[in-house]
Amino acid sequence: MFSMEPIGVVRSPYAETAQVPRGLGAEHHAEGVLEILPQFEPGLTDIEGFSHLFVLWVFDRASGYELLGTPPVDTRPHGVFATRSPRRPNPIGLSVVRLLGRDGCKLSVRGVDMLDGTAILDIKPYLSSIPIEELRRGWLDDVEASARRRRADE
Amino acid sequence: MFSMEPIGVVRSPYAETAQVPRGLGAEHHAEGVLEILPQFEPGLTDIEGFSHLFVLWVFDRASGYELLGTPPVDTRPHGVFATRSPRRPNPIGLSVVRLLGRDGCKLSVRGVDMLDGTAILDIKPYLSSIPIEELRRGWLDDVEASARRRRADE
Repeated sequence: MFSMEPIGVVRSPYAETAQVPRGLGAEHHAEGVLEILPQFEPGLTDIEGFSHLFVLWVFDRASGYELLGTPPVDTRPHGVFATRSPRRPNPIGLSVVRLLGRDGCKLSVRGVDMLDGTAILDIKPYLSSIPIEELRRGWLDDVEASARRRRADE
Repeated sequence: MFSMEPIGVVRSPYAETAQVPRGLGAEHHAEGVLEILPQFEPGLTDIEGFSHLFVLWVFDRASGYELLGTPPVDTRPHGVFATRSPRRPNPIGLSVVRLLGRDGCKLSVRGVDMLDGTAILDIKPYLSSIPIEELRRGWLDDVEASARRRRADE
């Protein structure tokens, strides 16, 4: 067992899960603030130079987990490790956000998909990308292809 | 405080930190196996369709943390949240690996940079990339540019 302690909190426009855009092609353009606790401020030194950050956070309003579940974008169940379901054995969320600016221990970011008040566990620089031609996205590609076919048939 | 429990363990060619490639342009091509505990195997359903995975794991051989530290690739200190230092307030590691195949609860992957026996906390599908032209990599870009200039001067 490992114990994790929040290093700060997310300020987001979303008070409830239902407000967070989900489903096919959901894009996250919402702006928010990562409020890091003052004692960790030295850890933010030089973070301004990075355009994008990984944020690790806690799905602190999810309870328990489900190994097989049907995500909102599909009608078939998939394994939890092949989805971004909040109901995971270790309820850690991962987001990539764009860093807009820093004011002391507050980081203004774009791309938040967390609820207001979410506990932050870690922040890391985002360093590289997988070339799009090497990326396969499993069942999500299938779901998106079916949706495109349905739209083309309409 | 949040308690996290391993879902499995990394099998890697690296027994010690000194064996993991580090420094400028370190690329991780090592192959390894993510051994997920049998009780979590249903959570792997459909994971085969994804080419790349995020692996969240524990720096379980690091102790304590350092808010300002000098990474192996630079001579100047940077904030821990602007580096991938193992000595973080919450010692969670994050790697992107390529999924080569699955045999029951064992995932063969390429790109491991973890030590053999590392505890795994979570696996998530890798879904998207930041276009390279939008990516800024802060102090690491500076270090790499200096290294290129030094090589050109030699």
